[in-house]
Amino acid sequence: MFEKTVEVSILYDFYGQLLTPKQKLILQMYYEDDYSLAEIAEDQSVTRQAVHDTIKKAEKSLRSYEEKLGLVVRFQETESLIKKVDLNIDDILMKHKEDIHLKAELYELKKLISVLEE
Amino acid sequence: MFEKTVEVSILYDFYGQLLTPKQKLILQMYYEDDYSLAEIAEDQSVTRQAVHDTIKKAEKSLRSYEEKLGLVVRFQETESLIKKVDLNIDDILMKHKEDIHLKAELYELKKLISVLEE
Repeated sequence: MFEKTVEVSILYDFYGQLLTPKQKLILQMYYEDDYSLAEIAEDQSVTRQAVHDTIKKAEKSLRSYEEKLGLVVRFQETESLIKKVDLNIDDILMKHKEDIHLKAELYELKKLISVLEE
Repeated sequence: MFEKTVEVSILYDFYGQLLTPKQKLILQMYYEDDYSLAEIAEDQSVTRQAVHDTIKKAEKSLRSYEEKLGLVVRFQETESLIKKVDLNIDDILMKHKEDIHLKAELYELKKLISVLEE
């Protein structure tokens, strides 16, 4: 369940703006604000089943966008390579820790990379 | 004109799969295969005006996806930071060119980064 929430949350971050306002509202209430189906149903004056269907349909849309565009995968591959570069710099730092100038330069490099990891 | 082609081509790379098969075909004929409006019209048995309208509508869709999602901008910002990291490594290489071990390590790092720049 937790993993599924993370998956939907990442997909929402990328493609959420392509959903309808109603879908966005209900996904936010359900996943971000942690309302129950029943609570959302009451708030929106619809049935619990209708809320459930809206959520499922919105999730299906998000997955379908990722199937077509694959931009989440593309970003995650980049992220993982950036992490590798960062770890690689740590290795170099360890091997040359006596070189103060180099150390300062590599820290500058790590600062740049940390922006990429944000 | 050239810049506009590049813009459409980048947008198409990101969001092309959200267009209709007909829109995709006509954009490809026009931008990639460099057919004229008249040639596409003849090939598709439609008017030149219809081809023109299809292209304009498809481009509008692509721009609207970017306005909503901003993923091209997000990728381009990442790319420009990665380029900066790469140039930074070149600087470090220049400053420490007498250190053979470090040189080898930094070249390994640059190899990783070149994958990111692909």
